[in-house]
Amino acid sequence: MADANAENEGPLGPDGKPISKKALKKQQKQAEKAAKKEQHKQAAGGDGNEDTEKEDFAKDSYGKCPMNQSQERVERDLVPVQSLTLELAEKKKDEKIWCRGRLHTSRSKGKQCFFVLRHQHFNVQAIVAVGERVSKQMVKFVAAITKESIIDVEGYVRKVDQKIESCSQQDVELHVEQVWVVSAAEPRLPVQIDDLSRPESEDDLAKVNPDTRLDNRILDLRTATSQAVFRLQGGVCRLFRDTLTAKGFTEIHTPKIISAASEGGANVFTVSYFKGSAYLAQSPQLYKQMAIAGDLDKVFTVGAVFRAEDSNTHRHLTEFVGLDVEMAFKYHYHEVMDVIGDLFVNIFKGLRDNFQTEIDTINKQYKSEPFKFLEPSLRLEYPEAVKLLRANGVEMGDEDDLTTPAEKLLGRLVKQKYDTDFFMLDKYPLAVRPFYTMPDPNSTKYSNSYDMFMRGEEILSGAQRIHDPDFLSERAKVHGIDLEKIRAYIDSFRYGCPPHAGGGIGKRWKQDLLW
Amino acid sequence: MADANAENEGPLGPDGKPISKKALKKQQKQAEKAAKKEQHKQAAGGDGNEDTEKEDFAKDSYGKCPMNQSQERVERDLVPVQSLTLELAEKKKDEKIWCRGRLHTSRSKGKQCFFVLRHQHFNVQAIVAVGERVSKQMVKFVAAITKESIIDVEGYVRKVDQKIESCSQQDVELHVEQVWVVSAAEPRLPVQIDDLSRPESEDDLAKVNPDTRLDNRILDLRTATSQAVFRLQGGVCRLFRDTLTAKGFTEIHTPKIISAASEGGANVFTVSYFKGSAYLAQSPQLYKQMAIAGDLDKVFTVGAVFRAEDSNTHRHLTEFVGLDVEMAFKYHYHEVMDVIGDLFVNIFKGLRDNFQTEIDTINKQYKSEPFKFLEPSLRLEYPEAVKLLRANGVEMGDEDDLTTPAEKLLGRLVKQKYDTDFFMLDKYPLAVRPFYTMPDPNSTKYSNSYDMFMRGEEILSGAQRIHDPDFLSERAKVHGIDLEKIRAYIDSFRYGCPPHAGGGIGKRWKQDLLW
Repeated sequence: MADANAENEGPLGPDGKPISKKALKKQQKQAEKAAKKEQHKQAAGGDGNEDTEKEDFAKDSYGKCPMNQSQERVERDLVPVQSLTLELAEKKKDEKIWCRGRLHTSRSKGKQCFFVLRHQHFNVQAIVAVGERVSKQMVKFVAAITKESIIDVEGYVRKVDQKIESCSQQDVELHVEQVWVVSAAEPRLPVQIDDLSRPESEDDLAKVNPDTRLDNRILDLRTATSQAVFRLQGGVCRLFRDTLTAKGFTEIHTPKIISAASEGGANVFTVSYFKGSAYLAQSPQLYKQMAIAGDLDKVFTVGAVFRAEDSNTHRHLTEFVGLDVEMAFKYHYHEVMDVIGDLFVNIFKGLRDNFQTEIDTINKQYKSEPFKFLEPSLRLEYPEAVKLLRANGVEMGDEDDLTTPAEKLLGRLVKQKYDTDFFMLDKYPLAVRPFYTMPDPNSTKYSNSYDMFMRGEEILSGAQRIHDPDFLSERAKVHGIDLEKIRAYIDSFRYGCPPHAGGGIGKRWKQDLLW
Repeated sequence: MADANAENEGPLGPDGKPISKKALKKQQKQAEKAAKKEQHKQAAGGDGNEDTEKEDFAKDSYGKCPMNQSQERVERDLVPVQSLTLELAEKKKDEKIWCRGRLHTSRSKGKQCFFVLRHQHFNVQAIVAVGERVSKQMVKFVAAITKESIIDVEGYVRKVDQKIESCSQQDVELHVEQVWVVSAAEPRLPVQIDDLSRPESEDDLAKVNPDTRLDNRILDLRTATSQAVFRLQGGVCRLFRDTLTAKGFTEIHTPKIISAASEGGANVFTVSYFKGSAYLAQSPQLYKQMAIAGDLDKVFTVGAVFRAEDSNTHRHLTEFVGLDVEMAFKYHYHEVMDVIGDLFVNIFKGLRDNFQTEIDTINKQYKSEPFKFLEPSLRLEYPEAVKLLRANGVEMGDEDDLTTPAEKLLGRLVKQKYDTDFFMLDKYPLAVRPFYTMPDPNSTKYSNSYDMFMRGEEILSGAQRIHDPDFLSERAKVHGIDLEKIRAYIDSFRYGCPPHAGGGIGKRWKQDLLW
């Protein structure tokens, strides 16, 4: 029993366990080895003064770990930064914990050093102060650790008297007794995480320009905002798939390298394919339709889409991730519009209910209003939109397509009138849609096609497709399309095909820009 | 009340509702219109004999629907073929139901016509026989409907005395009183669904060769086997993502068009990119690692992967769907191997528990044994595998890679010894792995890398990656790689990076072949 007590109070090794004789021996051996390799202090900015080191009673409580080569499978809990709470402080009053994170900032002040330990979008204040367990040399070592280095610290979680406003963990701080550098960052950061995280609204402070941001994408990924954006993106895809899977959809994957430039050949990338050439698919639409003609009934696919559009706008990207849906319907394409409308509502609700932390985090840097939507989704018809726009000064013909400014204005007008940031615009003019779009049965002007909008940005385009091969050929001819080039597509419908409709959500983030 | 009764017993329109006076009027008008357009009988093989038609008392009970342009949103239940069961037959004893499917086969026999109605991998026998509601002309019409046409039928679900062995719905048949062609197939099918569905084992019967199969992929997709394969593929991706999401992984999407051929430039496709060129990414690995250096900690991605390998084997595909994982670990890469091993177990169990119908369906055409696996997964080390192979006649050095025949043999030997179709092979020789693989800390021969196998086929390759930029440069130099070309990659690790490992599952189905 006395032994056990002694162990609890005795020195703890870097593996977090009390140092038994055997372990001590092992540790000493390791320490000697480390000293031999001169890895101990130098790499992290120590002065390499061997005399000082010899006198250092805390020399086994800090240093630079050898490069992790999976030397040993240590069984030690690392408490995540986000779990450092008041509750934990109370629970682990007499017990030290280990925690891994990045050294976000540090400030040395006489015999102590304050630093902030960060993990993803959580951070906590830590202090290492000269005392019974911590030597002067150790404080000096910690003060010299480069920002963004990954460190393991051991210490007590302590309640603070005054909330720490600058940290996510406001109620506690770490009183640190061991510090080990797991992976050191180079001394000079090309750009500071704090600068990358600065709110758009703080006009007086220097902003990081987009080029610098992208040139240092690794650092930019570490901001709370980027962490939240990636989680949200993953969440959108998950909600998309889960909603459709629950409705009996099957996920498919469609070819990206294709043998013929299907949609007329404009805006298509050419690939050298051994001795010949091939093309990059501009959309999975034809394959989705083949899946429908092949009786899969309801399909979706998430994947890369390529467009050779040499324009520098946020709507013209050479590569983006498309979320595509296609569905056989019974009698009317509105059955499909209902499914897609519900899909969006489900995504909006899922984000609102499960990703509020992420949304709040992004809002701190990029302010925006809460997203409004109706349930069921608002469906307008094209003539209503034209009327609304004309009443607000836009001059356009019945069968003209919407310009980008008109779309933006329409978004604002619909928001004013219906209090929704999302709506579906049905019955586009036939003239502005692709050849495979089903014409409206009651009017030669319009078609069974739709776009969907979020805040005045088109985010989905879709339609009932023509499933009759003869009529499809006829419409292709009207559009001046060479039937030979789309023969395989047209032939897909020769052996019976259910009426169907679908659409594609373009997550038009530019992949190149993300990395 | 009398009226209501009359309605229940009165004639039903093609919309499934009893025909009220108003509706009747409407229907008559529609019928006249249809007659005017001569759409009624001719298109589906009717003889166009107007005299016969005029005498036909059932003329409003069958015909060819006009092309669906979403003319009307009909509120009618279509009972799926798979729901046509004994229970339904009892429940709907006095009530007709509507059902949509493909006319799979038909056989005319005097005053009646038997046909099989198919939807996906379900089918049911149907009969239309001359009687009070069905005319001679109607039976003739049904007998002439081309195979694979999509039809709507109305009729009674009736119990059969003897099980219908050739159908999935063995206990019931449909007694049909209305038949409408929704989408007609061309009269001559280039290949029969039954031929495409024939079990591999029936050696005496003609097989469809792969070229014919692929040239008629739309029809091939309609076989029960293809329907099941696509559902299984979707299931694998879902189980992959759900398992990892539950463990806190974030889904990412990585660029496919990249500016530099990263992995040495071999086997890479070149894309014409406006005035310059770009390349197609051979793997998402570098981006996954950037995500780790960017603090996302645990990521996965499902997407297209491109390899310019001009070989005609089932392991060399120019395009496939990769399921990739990357994860920061605390102390040892076996933490990651454990996660991947569990991932596979979860996928195997999920398929076994939720997709047994699909597995059984595929087994009917392509016979295979139930898949065996251990929990937790078996982990062998490379030297053990070499020993096992040598004991069975394979000559190889300690640091030689496994040949494809050796892998297959190893699969069989492991199955014999451990009774598992899945295992993980750890500690590959350093010499046969990419430059970024972490060497074993205890031996210069081996590395912290692994492959995973199913039935002697490598299905995942992975490793602990080098997260130290200086050591990474050193290893790249040893491999003769131009550091300039991988500078961005190496620089990713300059600002601290946690130790990490991962792997990629190559779902090496050839997309081109799928469509």
